[in-house]
Amino acid sequence: MKFNKLTRSKMNTTLEEIANLVGAQVAEEFKSLSIAGIASVGEAQEGHLTFFGNQKYLPALKSSKASAALVPIDFTEEINAVPLRVENPSLAFSRVIEHFAPEPVVFAPGVHPTAVIGEGVELGEDVSIQAFAVLEKGVKIGRNSVVCAHVYLGHNATLGDDCRIYPNVTIREGTLIGNRVTIHSGTVLGSDGFGYEFSQGRHVKIPQVGIVQIDDDVEIGANVTIDRARFGRTWIQEGCKIDNLVQIGHNVEVGKHSLLISQVGISGSTKLGKYVILAGQVGVVGHIEIGDQAIVGAKSGVSKSVAPGKKLFGIPAMEAGDYMKIQARLRKLEDLFQRVKTLEKEQ
Amino acid sequence: MKFNKLTRSKMNTTLEEIANLVGAQVAEEFKSLSIAGIASVGEAQEGHLTFFGNQKYLPALKSSKASAALVPIDFTEEINAVPLRVENPSLAFSRVIEHFAPEPVVFAPGVHPTAVIGEGVELGEDVSIQAFAVLEKGVKIGRNSVVCAHVYLGHNATLGDDCRIYPNVTIREGTLIGNRVTIHSGTVLGSDGFGYEFSQGRHVKIPQVGIVQIDDDVEIGANVTIDRARFGRTWIQEGCKIDNLVQIGHNVEVGKHSLLISQVGISGSTKLGKYVILAGQVGVVGHIEIGDQAIVGAKSGVSKSVAPGKKLFGIPAMEAGDYMKIQARLRKLEDLFQRVKTLEKEQ
Amino acid sequence: MKFNKLTRSKMNTTLEEIANLVGAQVAEEFKSLSIAGIASVGEAQEGHLTFFGNQKYLPALKSSKASAALVPIDFTEEINAVPLRVENPSLAFSRVIEHFAPEPVVFAPGVHPTAVIGEGVELGEDVSIQAFAVLEKGVKIGRNSVVCAHVYLGHNATLGDDCRIYPNVTIREGTLIGNRVTIHSGTVLGSDGFGYEFSQGRHVKIPQVGIVQIDDDVEIGANVTIDRARFGRTWIQEGCKIDNLVQIGHNVEVGKHSLLISQVGISGSTKLGKYVILAGQVGVVGHIEIGDQAIVGAKSGVSKSVAPGKKLFGIPAMEAGDYMKIQARLRKLEDLFQRVKTLEKEQ
Repeated sequence: MKFNKLTRSKMNTTLEEIANLVGAQVAEEFKSLSIAGIASVGEAQEGHLTFFGNQKYLPALKSSKASAALVPIDFTEEINAVPLRVENPSLAFSRVIEHFAPEPVVFAPGVHPTAVIGEGVELGEDVSIQAFAVLEKGVKIGRNSVVCAHVYLGHNATLGDDCRIYPNVTIREGTLIGNRVTIHSGTVLGSDGFGYEFSQGRHVKIPQVGIVQIDDDVEIGANVTIDRARFGRTWIQEGCKIDNLVQIGHNVEVGKHSLLISQVGISGSTKLGKYVILAGQVGVVGHIEIGDQAIVGAKSGVSKSVAPGKKLFGIPAMEAGDYMKIQARLRKLEDLFQRVKTLEKEQ
Repeated sequence: MKFNKLTRSKMNTTLEEIANLVGAQVAEEFKSLSIAGIASVGEAQEGHLTFFGNQKYLPALKSSKASAALVPIDFTEEINAVPLRVENPSLAFSRVIEHFAPEPVVFAPGVHPTAVIGEGVELGEDVSIQAFAVLEKGVKIGRNSVVCAHVYLGHNATLGDDCRIYPNVTIREGTLIGNRVTIHSGTVLGSDGFGYEFSQGRHVKIPQVGIVQIDDDVEIGANVTIDRARFGRTWIQEGCKIDNLVQIGHNVEVGKHSLLISQVGISGSTKLGKYVILAGQVGVVGHIEIGDQAIVGAKSGVSKSVAPGKKLFGIPAMEAGDYMKIQARLRKLEDLFQRVKTLEKEQ
Repeated sequence: MKFNKLTRSKMNTTLEEIANLVGAQVAEEFKSLSIAGIASVGEAQEGHLTFFGNQKYLPALKSSKASAALVPIDFTEEINAVPLRVENPSLAFSRVIEHFAPEPVVFAPGVHPTAVIGEGVELGEDVSIQAFAVLEKGVKIGRNSVVCAHVYLGHNATLGDDCRIYPNVTIREGTLIGNRVTIHSGTVLGSDGFGYEFSQGRHVKIPQVGIVQIDDDVEIGANVTIDRARFGRTWIQEGCKIDNLVQIGHNVEVGKHSLLISQVGISGSTKLGKYVILAGQVGVVGHIEIGDQAIVGAKSGVSKSVAPGKKLFGIPAMEAGDYMKIQARLRKLEDLFQRVKTLEKEQ
């Protein structure tokens, strides 16, 4: 099956119009150049605008078929594309994207006739409740929020203003969600924490009666799981951004503006400070603290508390400098064995 | 947005009442102390009860604002909170939580008018089928089981008594589920196993015609995936507890009362014995056996069969003792390189 | 609860019939032997047919209770089961499975009365749209495709011919899907890519206005997440097979006939060539290229571009040969420390 891949980014404009949009100069002869689409240096075809945001893409830019390229002010390389010089090519490109992007999907206010709305549900102004949404008894939703198709909101769950909850999200009873929160499809908030007491050869469930609290301006990716607290709350603070397939255990706290990249797992009762970054596939044990602005490299396993500002790497995670040294030494380990052998012979 | 985080754990009771509940003594002067909530040592405020279950939280307990604390019988430290001495503070705390927890959500028996019920479906006594549930032809459900909103039960799937299937779970055709099984939201049982034959430059699908069987008293977390068998069954035995985002391949068998912590992945046809524990993010190759009561540490990669009772760690997984030794040596590797250099100079 | 585990594979046939099916000879005396089921060597009971496809299962085959076994032409071991000699026992077994498998679930063409079909939706011949499916404005679906219960198809999403989209899948606006594509339950296509600019202490969202494109003959497992592009497309090319719980970031390209095993994560803008294999739990950083036919071992972390045909292992990933050497040396590290100590004493 052949797709016309440009369908969604088709534009019909001139280079002059784009130059005006981003505050760049363009030589008279190129002003009327027709720009039909936007693409990365690697994907761009004739008639496309691209951008140069990272030195490593210079060879790709040089061989790119793009007709025009956003480049830094001090850019001096020879390229086939017509250069548009701007302060920050990446940001300028974002502005162009937004300007020419397909209209974002808008869900009109109102409650779809198929939605199931429980007793005592309170809906703010201009809320949109889509097909097959289920809002159990006591749910409260602030104004301008959109609850997409097939979303489940459990008893007494609360959602603030200007939220968007994408299709097939499950939000269990009692969950508290602030303003301007976005939750992507397939995500589950408020599932029971993983807690059992071992007794007479069996794992006996410890009741999980706490809640999940998500503060303002948080975005949560697709198929994420955040367990409810054993008691009290599992707490994601203001401005955090959580990528797809992340797991957050019961009673975890994630401090303001932290980033959790895809497939991270955090065990129960661990606390993260502000501006923490956990890179992809990091695992963190339970009951520890990770200080403000700490950064943990991809695939690391954090087994004890981390001081603020540290950069860690490895399994178990150690200071990035120590980790790098060990990695360098490992590559010379074969050599070391030979050197010791030589010493032994010379003995 | 400001939440009153205690909403769900508000209580209005005296310390005497709590002491009676857990069988503790309380001095006359503190009997009428008012307890308004329960919280961990770190989160507790004035008026709260907390508990001391782990020596590492002693500094936190000492600086806690809690008004009372459940502590061990032999506890002698000076703390600001009024101590309530009990055998097992953690267990006693659980009892208090249960007593004061918000009423659990109850789904009344009956079939929601929006549910789609196929031909020949058999429903036991007091079953609750919630909004938009789909039960295909031949599904059987035992008594007292709850099928929440948006759950899909494929053709001839069977569910025992006293089960709870949370919203947005998918249970594919032919799946067999025992009694007292809990399945959290977003989980998929019976998706096709990952099996292809490579032929003429393409991956040709091997039909996956087996089933998934879940025995009694199993709990499965959120967004878990358990593939159907190529033939026969993928089998989770009695009493197993499976955390969020775990992947279980086709024809895997998990022995009784095993624990699979979050983000574990088990490849096809591998067999786990009884009481096995796989910690978070462990990966296990296909076609091996892991013996009874083996324990595999977090993030390890198991590449060959494991004898009963072993404790493993690392990638590839090795006996925990050997792993610890190597880790200790790695931290002295830099030093070893220096020592060899010195020896070479002295030569 | 007791299940009759053979329910779904019950057959009632003779060994002669099976021999004919796979082109094997069977001695006269065993022709009328009754075969009641099929099972692996470990699970097989009296009356079952099994197969011997892997030398490591020889002890299991010898102690198997199976009544008959498909074995290679040159098989000479003594076993209790009646041997059926064939070129490829595994393939022959697949043929038997298919022949005796339960009837696959068939969804009759038509649109379920509960489905919500938006304006301008185009449905091909013999399409089946199941209960509670939501097809937003402008969705196009080719002939013979099946959209199962609770599937969400966003605005202008396009699906080719002969596709099957299992229950609870979310396909966001603008997604392009080719012919003969299978998507398992819980999977999310087209969620926003993870992209923010850090400005004044906050993470500001970068609009994600591209799409996801899935080419012909792709199969995607359960609870997978594939993010839409920042602009342009995230692109899964023809014939790829993606296992459960895999994460694919924005603007990633996966070349033809590549295999991504369970729980793999690929960061934004990375490009994979053709016939690449990423084993379970592999992580790949963003903005790199992995060449055609490269193979990355389980749990590895790929941090820079990989040449075609390479076999990599480890965190960070290195050539498999180098990795194996280091692993072997690590097991002798303790010994090396002792040898250096001895040398120092002898100095």
